[in-house]
Amino acid sequence: MGFLVKLGILVLVVAVCQAYQDIWDYDGHKLKDTDYLSLWPMPQKVQTSVTAFKLSSSNFQIVHAKQSSAGPGCSLLQTAFRRYFDYIFGYMKKQGFSKEPKKTVGEEVLELQVLITSSDSECDGYPGLKSDESYLLSVDQPSAVLQAPTVWGALRGLETFSQLVYEDAYGSRNINKTAISDFPRFAHRGVLLDTSRHYLPLKVILANLEAMAMNKFNVFHWHIVDDPSFPYVSRTFPDLSQKGAYHPYTHVYTPSDVKMVIEFARMRGIRVIPEFDTPGHTQSWGKSQKDLLTPCYSGATPSGSYGPVNPMLNSTYDFMASFFKEISSVFPDAYVHLGGDEVDFSCWKSNPDITKFMAEQGFGKDYSKLESYYIQRLLDIVSTTNKGYMIWQEVFDNGVKLKPETLVHVWIWWGKGGYKDELSRVTSAGYQTLLSAPWYLNIISYGQDWKNLYKEDPHNFNGTDEQKKLVIGGEACLWGEYVDATNITPRLWPRASAVSERLWSDASVKDVNKAYVRLVQHRCRMVERGIAAEPLFVGYCPHEYKGNL
Amino acid sequence: MGFLVKLGILVLVVAVCQAYQDIWDYDGHKLKDTDYLSLWPMPQKVQTSVTAFKLSSSNFQIVHAKQSSAGPGCSLLQTAFRRYFDYIFGYMKKQGFSKEPKKTVGEEVLELQVLITSSDSECDGYPGLKSDESYLLSVDQPSAVLQAPTVWGALRGLETFSQLVYEDAYGSRNINKTAISDFPRFAHRGVLLDTSRHYLPLKVILANLEAMAMNKFNVFHWHIVDDPSFPYVSRTFPDLSQKGAYHPYTHVYTPSDVKMVIEFARMRGIRVIPEFDTPGHTQSWGKSQKDLLTPCYSGATPSGSYGPVNPMLNSTYDFMASFFKEISSVFPDAYVHLGGDEVDFSCWKSNPDITKFMAEQGFGKDYSKLESYYIQRLLDIVSTTNKGYMIWQEVFDNGVKLKPETLVHVWIWWGKGGYKDELSRVTSAGYQTLLSAPWYLNIISYGQDWKNLYKEDPHNFNGTDEQKKLVIGGEACLWGEYVDATNITPRLWPRASAVSERLWSDASVKDVNKAYVRLVQHRCRMVERGIAAEPLFVGYCPHEYKGNL
Repeated sequence: MGFLVKLGILVLVVAVCQAYQDIWDYDGHKLKDTDYLSLWPMPQKVQTSVTAFKLSSSNFQIVHAKQSSAGPGCSLLQTAFRRYFDYIFGYMKKQGFSKEPKKTVGEEVLELQVLITSSDSECDGYPGLKSDESYLLSVDQPSAVLQAPTVWGALRGLETFSQLVYEDAYGSRNINKTAISDFPRFAHRGVLLDTSRHYLPLKVILANLEAMAMNKFNVFHWHIVDDPSFPYVSRTFPDLSQKGAYHPYTHVYTPSDVKMVIEFARMRGIRVIPEFDTPGHTQSWGKSQKDLLTPCYSGATPSGSYGPVNPMLNSTYDFMASFFKEISSVFPDAYVHLGGDEVDFSCWKSNPDITKFMAEQGFGKDYSKLESYYIQRLLDIVSTTNKGYMIWQEVFDNGVKLKPETLVHVWIWWGKGGYKDELSRVTSAGYQTLLSAPWYLNIISYGQDWKNLYKEDPHNFNGTDEQKKLVIGGEACLWGEYVDATNITPRLWPRASAVSERLWSDASVKDVNKAYVRLVQHRCRMVERGIAAEPLFVGYCPHEYKGNL
Repeated sequence: MGFLVKLGILVLVVAVCQAYQDIWDYDGHKLKDTDYLSLWPMPQKVQTSVTAFKLSSSNFQIVHAKQSSAGPGCSLLQTAFRRYFDYIFGYMKKQGFSKEPKKTVGEEVLELQVLITSSDSECDGYPGLKSDESYLLSVDQPSAVLQAPTVWGALRGLETFSQLVYEDAYGSRNINKTAISDFPRFAHRGVLLDTSRHYLPLKVILANLEAMAMNKFNVFHWHIVDDPSFPYVSRTFPDLSQKGAYHPYTHVYTPSDVKMVIEFARMRGIRVIPEFDTPGHTQSWGKSQKDLLTPCYSGATPSGSYGPVNPMLNSTYDFMASFFKEISSVFPDAYVHLGGDEVDFSCWKSNPDITKFMAEQGFGKDYSKLESYYIQRLLDIVSTTNKGYMIWQEVFDNGVKLKPETLVHVWIWWGKGGYKDELSRVTSAGYQTLLSAPWYLNIISYGQDWKNLYKEDPHNFNGTDEQKKLVIGGEACLWGEYVDATNITPRLWPRASAVSERLWSDASVKDVNKAYVRLVQHRCRMVERGIAAEPLFVGYCPHEYKGNL
């Protein structure tokens, strides 16, 4: 039966026998007893020691440091304190907090002081591409200190602090003397979820935002609509979802749903970038918007089916102007993703009005010029809303004129040179870019495919240092053909965690066997926290999955 | 982005455009309006019509027919009545049952009479390989009648009845005039779950037994122990789990857990066949049983590691006799699976005592003779417990003498001729066999791989009719290397459903595109019933997954 097992067990043994990646103590000794180190993603600099302190749910507090620019009025931090307190003591029978600290047993960390150093903590703002997520963490007794310029770094440091806490054989919480200096390698670290091919209930999205925060992801790329369905409820054009969603009440995102996603994400330092992909991938738009899509022809007569957005009508651009005006006010992020991928020319070619328009415009037979004509006008419209834009790589490939700050999203993994040549081309043209090509998590295979995800690197292409600097990060994409609420969480986690470490940690953190040891523990931690992250291989978690969605 | 999508959408359209497989009405007309037909697996004979009756949660009852050999004292049927009533009306706001039936609106089915025709209903028995699962179902108004020789057929018919009920646009329950005559093509239709590589909490096992019943599976092959862990709590040898489980309290199956699994399965007409695989796959046994495993040697000295069960010691056979005596009393089924697969000879070869024993026995260098020696003695021991046995194909391949009623389990899918030649060999030697080789559900790939599972057929080998009759069925196997509570349910369902139809329905039911239409609906039905069955492709369910495990 288990023919495939033996090879696997061999791999496991090799992995476990590997020493943990080098961690140094305060005296410059390489640490060996590192069972308790389960940090993910690996911070930039870690100094730790075998000196262990206790943490008691009755005594321990997370508090604002006196000099902090944030205080109890910062609800983002207050709720984060509560969240991480729950994570740290979640599996213990809590004894209630005593205002008079109990007698401590041995050395104990009594508080974590959180110190925001910038005069503007950004507590009430939104995270952005230029947010400072750095932090310094010092764990000592009786006080640990977490210092960060803004709340965004504090959120990352709280996650790290919670990961340092471990349970000893008697169930008590421990943390070792530690100093960490940390910041992300890339500014844009995203997860794409697709709510068009299958509708994802709100609580599924929120659960995955929660998991994203555990992995220090900071962008939720919401591929919210596409051909199969249009679940976004537009105030300006309510018929879009009324007619284009799978169901107008049960399978939509209302304005208050969208607000909740954005706020839930903000509280975790996660940006929400919506994608409204045009001119292709728009079949569901056409269900309500007469004349928006191009009628396809069969010979001399319309066939009854429709192709991409009709680029020759002024009504198309009037619609887009109104629509994106709404989008720009609903979504606070400075960027919107405009898609622009996979435009199928066959319908345009069949349509005699389009043929005539092509001739008038002098496009000859080059339909990519027509595509560019549409995209160009769309980009001009969106520019008036003061949003920056992200586009899939085809828009760049087709030579559309782009604003210098445009983000080019590289996704095509096949062909000569693959995505690496594309990264070279995009950056040598001076554009910022982000990578998804090797990180299509919807594509599954038997075995530990996270290792392949882990080995990829967005800087692994031919280019100058200047070009490398134009790579702002990447995104793990989970397209929805075969994914819905029933299987999304185990399919995404911990495979996306492989991407999160690649995008956060130093480029030198790349040993798969060493990563395995930490990732096994990180995955069990996610499971403890209620995330149905699937197993990497044979084994068990002390606290198995209990059935939260 | 969604490069792979287009091909998929094409497939979808093709599938939806295909007419439903031929269903005939009472007047011999082929039915076309078959939206409501979502039967899975397809019964042997279905006659239906467009005449629809109503079902009301206030009026409808499932009752014992007067002439039935089972009555209200048959708790197996009573709880099945409740279960299927809940499935049928689950999503409606129930108005409470009124003893005075309300005025009916139009034609209505007021009751389903269940008639057990054999004098022994088998209500308090266990299902077995020779159980009669046939049933006749007639849906008319005011009464529907389900007739079956035993409770086992009644359970299958109740499932079918519940599948005939559909919800109209106003939310009311409907069922069409229908007559069904049904029985399984194969007697052994199993699902293997592996609780050694990962521990599965009891409720996960129960949830999957529930899903098995929805698919008319009738065997739970419980691969309960293996190399990584020994979660079975033995009364005779408690140290086996005390030392061999991942954790002696949280990761074990106590005697009462095992009892509950067996009873929960029995109530659904499902047999529980435990597998205790020896002489290989026994590392976890060795943690507590000194001398049970063969010490491996490195040169002239023991290496500290252990190989398969030690076949030369009498203590080994004493242990097995006591152990299997317990097993035979704990598990009521007439069969136990003894494994016997993948025995690695390298450790035996390294051990000088084994070498000497081989010489004494005149085995030469043929270690498969040593393996056979062990298995032979084991089979003799198990025979004294009056159990029949199942074994993996290697035991047959190695020429071990088997009792005529032994079931040979074919699992090796590679090599010349693949599993088909093996089926020919096993059946031409006169043994009964069952097939798992093409149905290793742990092996995953991108896309709709259920179609490949669906296309396999256990009769698809060269052999006489007599040989074909020796094929008793098959099993879908979900090995546990990469599967635990977090992902088992969506990985198993609805992919295992493809196997269930192959094993239940007539051989002529094999059109993949027609199956697709029904399976999409069957999958949504499982989701409605709380089973996290993953989607087949783009689309939606009226009632999406709400998060039950």
